[in-house]
Amino acid sequence: MTMPGTNLDPWYDSYAARTAGLSASEVRALFAVASRPEVVSLAGGMPYVSALPPELVSGSIERVLSSNAAMALQYGSGQGTPAIREHILQIMAMEGIRGSADDVVVTTGSQQALDLVTRIFVDPGDVVLAESPSYVGALGVFRAYQADVQHVAMNDEGLVPEALREAIARVTARGGRIKFLYTIPNFHNPAGVTLSWARRVEILEICREAGILVLEDNPYGLLSFDQPAPHAMRSVDDEGVIYLGSFSKTLAPGFRVGWALAPHAIREKLILANESATLAPNSFGQFVITEYLDQADWRGQIATFRDLYRERRDAMLTALGEYLPSLTWTRPDGGFFVWLTLPEELDSKAMLPRAVKELVAYTPGTAFYADGQGRGNIRLSFCYPTPEAIRTGVERLARVVNGELDLLRTFSGARLTRAHDQRPGVVTPPPNTD
Amino acid sequence: MTMPGTNLDPWYDSYAARTAGLSASEVRALFAVASRPEVVSLAGGMPYVSALPPELVSGSIERVLSSNAAMALQYGSGQGTPAIREHILQIMAMEGIRGSADDVVVTTGSQQALDLVTRIFVDPGDVVLAESPSYVGALGVFRAYQADVQHVAMNDEGLVPEALREAIARVTARGGRIKFLYTIPNFHNPAGVTLSWARRVEILEICREAGILVLEDNPYGLLSFDQPAPHAMRSVDDEGVIYLGSFSKTLAPGFRVGWALAPHAIREKLILANESATLAPNSFGQFVITEYLDQADWRGQIATFRDLYRERRDAMLTALGEYLPSLTWTRPDGGFFVWLTLPEELDSKAMLPRAVKELVAYTPGTAFYADGQGRGNIRLSFCYPTPEAIRTGVERLARVVNGELDLLRTFSGARLTRAHDQRPGVVTPPPNTD
Repeated sequence: MTMPGTNLDPWYDSYAARTAGLSASEVRALFAVASRPEVVSLAGGMPYVSALPPELVSGSIERVLSSNAAMALQYGSGQGTPAIREHILQIMAMEGIRGSADDVVVTTGSQQALDLVTRIFVDPGDVVLAESPSYVGALGVFRAYQADVQHVAMNDEGLVPEALREAIARVTARGGRIKFLYTIPNFHNPAGVTLSWARRVEILEICREAGILVLEDNPYGLLSFDQPAPHAMRSVDDEGVIYLGSFSKTLAPGFRVGWALAPHAIREKLILANESATLAPNSFGQFVITEYLDQADWRGQIATFRDLYRERRDAMLTALGEYLPSLTWTRPDGGFFVWLTLPEELDSKAMLPRAVKELVAYTPGTAFYADGQGRGNIRLSFCYPTPEAIRTGVERLARVVNGELDLLRTFSGARLTRAHDQRPGVVTPPPNTD
Repeated sequence: MTMPGTNLDPWYDSYAARTAGLSASEVRALFAVASRPEVVSLAGGMPYVSALPPELVSGSIERVLSSNAAMALQYGSGQGTPAIREHILQIMAMEGIRGSADDVVVTTGSQQALDLVTRIFVDPGDVVLAESPSYVGALGVFRAYQADVQHVAMNDEGLVPEALREAIARVTARGGRIKFLYTIPNFHNPAGVTLSWARRVEILEICREAGILVLEDNPYGLLSFDQPAPHAMRSVDDEGVIYLGSFSKTLAPGFRVGWALAPHAIREKLILANESATLAPNSFGQFVITEYLDQADWRGQIATFRDLYRERRDAMLTALGEYLPSLTWTRPDGGFFVWLTLPEELDSKAMLPRAVKELVAYTPGTAFYADGQGRGNIRLSFCYPTPEAIRTGVERLARVVNGELDLLRTFSGARLTRAHDQRPGVVTPPPNTD
């Protein structure tokens, strides 16, 4: 649809160099197909806001309008309101963070905090270190600022310190300028793993020694299922960490309110960048959230979300064990996502259209790499569909995976006899590749 | 306050080159001093949202929560909701614009639209043409993207076509790449003038011939006092104009909802840039505004704002005529601002601390130039203070101006006798410099 427009675009030669880095994410394209009601979408990362009783929000809004309407409807400060910044301190204290409200900058979702941090640090060609895989929206920001993203290996305990050391040495040896390490320590998106406490300390030490800033992105930290996540990396390092938080997963994303807690000098630049970008984050959302945190049982609401997502996580893990027993996947202790590894012969991106045909959608692993990796992986999200839908979705996915494997086997054995019919066949047990 | 932090900043060498262009605007510094209740602020550009009956908004919010809560609290599309984009078309039709909802991109205030347009077009060193003077917030964005801003002269009919031709020739001759002309045709901020219809047509022709995109920023267009503003430039040129609009002045800025209407190929890039920057504009604000436009008498509310601002404009013009009869100023037919020209001897920036001491604040003209001009001008805003406060403010301003002139005269005549006391003296009639 956009191709003819692009070809005919009279401004084609006028765009900035950075604009070449703007491309529709694979997740975005998926939202369109996956929104058909008959498709079970295990693709998106939308929180299940229907579990938030509207009266909790409407009560807050009534109080804002009756007592603070003129301010809530007005322009606000580029840093965010003092009241919400005080609340944000209390929330971060639950993860061991002690800071000053003066160093909190409220942003239009934590996505904008990612944008602003990248804006003030990254010149074209600068290196950003990121987990392998990493959050698709962060990779989009890094690309938009022409960063050179270098992935660093993870395993079940999260980012691997030795791999980080190697990456730093490799980049430094070739004269690259590393601007920061971007990490999601808790309930990683998309990998579903959590960085252990020992590794947090070790990674902070590595970064401190190498003079590398850490960008700690923590949207899911309070959504733990079995035990609380380890304390934030920011809790042990005030000067070397920018911490990003959000109300999108613990309350609702529709207000677009997130934040950064930054070392003092950096926070000043973030405020200026924020003012340049939007003048100020939306006052109305900030006032409503402040009332909500003042008056509503927000800790209880987070517990509700936890219980809900735990049940869905369990449904997904059970279904995977049942329908795809020969594959491997991560077992998240919180958050929204499971990371599935496919048999070597399969390609998650190539398989997606067939999956949608079978009425299940997922995000191919390729979305989470800056360098074309990820064809062997799938991100499955359990946040939005019901447990029953999750079960159905995994069953359909298994049918697709097994059908693909069957097809490959048939092709390699008797290619000519099946070449006219590329549709996946009936469900057969997968070969034991793992 | 920020200086010690900057000196001690361990990340000082890590910032991107563009970050040097981030500096606190003079307007921002003013907000702090001018917020003391005893100061009459003629400095800010805050709309008088107290003139919006809260029940108009609360009714809309109730309907959103009762019928659409789950969607209003959820992530939305990076382009904005289809419903609000249809309403935006109707609003733009009042200014002669015909377009497609498919080409509207909803943004976090029109400030963010400015940011996104600049982001996709401007490489460091590229030229942006802007009126002389121009909107401080736009200049901040252009600086943040390292644009080379070239000012183009205005007079009482707005931007001067001949000056535009000369600027294009001058920049082209030295090999500069002009990316767009940024203009505020209606009730200009800060100049208070309106671009005549004949000039709109002529400027569009000049730009079309030179292959220069026009960025038409129109936040005040519907706030006319005496007669409607001429139709938008976008109404006669679909392919060469990006039009920016906002709900901040016709409804309330606290929702941070503005928009761009762009040629089709450009709008696709704006959506991608929007997703990269914030994922999506806030759903809640969009749903509330949609309900408001569906149900409330929004045209009547705009008429209320018009009447209110007209009365304040009149109060300011009357007070200026009474207290500063020897100076010159513009006579805005809408919007928020009057542009005052000081006697040649005075410096608006140097005079500001003395004005604040006399309990009146204004924005020095220097804020509205990228090149250090503007010391001979002041922007006075009449949007927020009551007519009585405006009168008091102008009276105080006259005392400062006249005191400065008196002081200069005294100094030049008898410097030694007054050197120990630099405070402005009693009010005396100003010398006839104009």
